[in-house]
Amino acid sequence: MAGPIEKLSSSKVFEGELIKYKFKSAALGDLDAQFNLFIPFLRNGAKAPLLVYLAGLTCTEDNGAQKGGFFGVASAQGLAILFPDTSPRGAGAPGEEDSWDFGTGAGFYVNATKPEYSKHYNMYTHITTELPEVIKAAGLPIDTTRQSIFGHSMGGHGALVLYLSSKSKQYRSASAFAPIANPSKCPWGEKAFSGYLHGGVEEGAKNYDATELIFQHKGPLHILVDYGTGDNFYKQGQLLPENFLKAAHDAGYDDGVQVRVRSQADYDHSYYFISTFAGDHIHFHANFLKV
Amino acid sequence: MAGPIEKLSSSKVFEGELIKYKFKSAALGDLDAQFNLFIPFLRNGAKAPLLVYLAGLTCTEDNGAQKGGFFGVASAQGLAILFPDTSPRGAGAPGEEDSWDFGTGAGFYVNATKPEYSKHYNMYTHITTELPEVIKAAGLPIDTTRQSIFGHSMGGHGALVLYLSSKSKQYRSASAFAPIANPSKCPWGEKAFSGYLHGGVEEGAKNYDATELIFQHKGPLHILVDYGTGDNFYKQGQLLPENFLKAAHDAGYDDGVQVRVRSQADYDHSYYFISTFAGDHIHFHANFLKV
Repeated sequence: MAGPIEKLSSSKVFEGELIKYKFKSAALGDLDAQFNLFIPFLRNGAKAPLLVYLAGLTCTEDNGAQKGGFFGVASAQGLAILFPDTSPRGAGAPGEEDSWDFGTGAGFYVNATKPEYSKHYNMYTHITTELPEVIKAAGLPIDTTRQSIFGHSMGGHGALVLYLSSKSKQYRSASAFAPIANPSKCPWGEKAFSGYLHGGVEEGAKNYDATELIFQHKGPLHILVDYGTGDNFYKQGQLLPENFLKAAHDAGYDDGVQVRVRSQADYDHSYYFISTFAGDHIHFHANFLKV
Repeated sequence: MAGPIEKLSSSKVFEGELIKYKFKSAALGDLDAQFNLFIPFLRNGAKAPLLVYLAGLTCTEDNGAQKGGFFGVASAQGLAILFPDTSPRGAGAPGEEDSWDFGTGAGFYVNATKPEYSKHYNMYTHITTELPEVIKAAGLPIDTTRQSIFGHSMGGHGALVLYLSSKSKQYRSASAFAPIANPSKCPWGEKAFSGYLHGGVEEGAKNYDATELIFQHKGPLHILVDYGTGDNFYKQGQLLPENFLKAAHDAGYDDGVQVRVRSQADYDHSYYFISTFAGDHIHFHANFLKV
C-alpha cells in the first residue's frame, strides 16, 4: 500500500494552489514518487474534477506545470490538474541511465513484464490506480470519479492508451499534443516495448498501442489530438498520427467529432506548441468533466 | 559596433514566432550575446511595438519566454517581446562565477564603472541602445520608436530604472513583478553596486535606484508593480516595494494611477506568480504602446 503523502512545497497560481507532494509508492516498488497537483480555488466543501497530464521523454512532474500554460483556463473552468512523474526514480534497473529514451524519465506508461523491470516500472498502475487512491486517502478536495487525461509525446501516447484501455472507463475524455500514436511501429516505442515487456513489441501492440486499442473499444469516444507539421519527431516518423486517424476511420469513428486529429501548420514539438493549444484542450475536457 | 545577428532557432507560438538570436555585442566587450524575440503574426509590412522583458537573478533569455505565459495576450494585442540575457557570459571578470547574485546571471542592468568590470558588464547600454539598434539593423518588423519595459525581481528593478532614467523617455510605460525596488537599501543591491561601481552604493543610489530616481522625474508616470505577500525575498527585505510607494507619494505621484503598487495576497516569487498577472501587465503596456 502507498504511504502517506508529504507536502514538499506550494505556490499560489491563478487564485488556486500548485502543490508538490512526495510519497512511498507501492506500485513503483516502494520508491519515493513525486507529483504536482493544481487545485483551483473552491468554495468550502466543493471538490474539483481531475485532469491528468502525462509528460514526455526526459520530463518530470515539473515540465507541464512550469511551461504548459494550463492554469489560467483550468482555474477559470474549476478543474484540478495532476502532474505525475514519467518513471520511477532510482530503481537501479539494468540500463536505466544509459539513454534518454529508455529507463529513467521514459517509463512509457506501461507495467513492465520483464523481471528486471517489473518491480519498479509500473507507471500504468501508478497513474490509473495508485495516485487517485493516494489523493482520495489524503482527503484532498478532488472528485476522482470525474477524471480525464491528456499528455505530450510519450505522455500523449500514455493519455490515449490509458483512456482506451482502462476497463472501468476511468477517463471521460483524452487529448494529446504530438502523441506517439502508434508506438509499435516507431523506434521509440519499439525500444520501450522490447525493453520493458516479456512479449516485446507484440505485447506492446496488443496492450499499449492506441492505434491497435481503438479497434477493441466499444461505445462513443471523446478524443482530441494536435500535432505540428514543423515537428521534427513527426517528420522522423516517431508520432504517426495518420496511422491513428486511419485506424479511427476503419473502426468507425470517422465523423471528425469522436476522434479529432488536427494538423497545425509549422508548429514544432516544444512547450511553445503545447501552450498555444492548452486552452483548447482544457476546454475540450471541461465539456465532459463538468457534468 | 555590434555584429550581425545569427538565427539559432525558432518556434511558432500563438500564431507568432519566437526566435533565438546570437550576435557579437560591442556593449558587452565583443562577447557573444543571445536574446529571444517574440514577433506576433503581422500583416505584410506592419511593425509591432516592442515590450522588453528583463529577467531576474540566475536567469537567461529563456526563463521569461518559457515560463512567463506572455504569448497568448501579446499575440492577441499584437505586441513583440524582447528577452535579453541577464549578464555578459564568459567575461572572465574577477569573482563572476563565485556567487549566484553577482557576476554571471546577475548584471543588475547597470554600466559598471570599476575597471575590472567596465569592459563587459554594461547591460544598461546593451538593453537601452544596442539591442534596439541590432533589431533595427536586421530589418525585423519591430517599431523601436514604441517601446515599454517590464521585468521580474532584479529585472523589475531594471525595468523601473531604465524607464525612469532613460533621458529620451525611451519607454512609454514600466511594470514589474516583485522588483528590487530600493536596491541601495537591500543586501542584493548593496552587493551589486559595491561590486560593479567605483562609487559603490552611493553611485548606485544616484543612478540605478528607482526609489531615488523617481524624485528626479518630470512629467506623468505609467508604472505598475505587483508583489506577493508570500514571497520570501519580500519578507527578507530584498524588495522593499513600500519604500518605492512612499517615494512615489512624496514625489507627488500619489493618485494610485501614475504609480500603482499592488500587494497580492499569498503569492510567492516564482513564475507561477508572474504567469498569473502576466495578462494584466501586457494589457497595461498595450494601453500605451498601441497609440
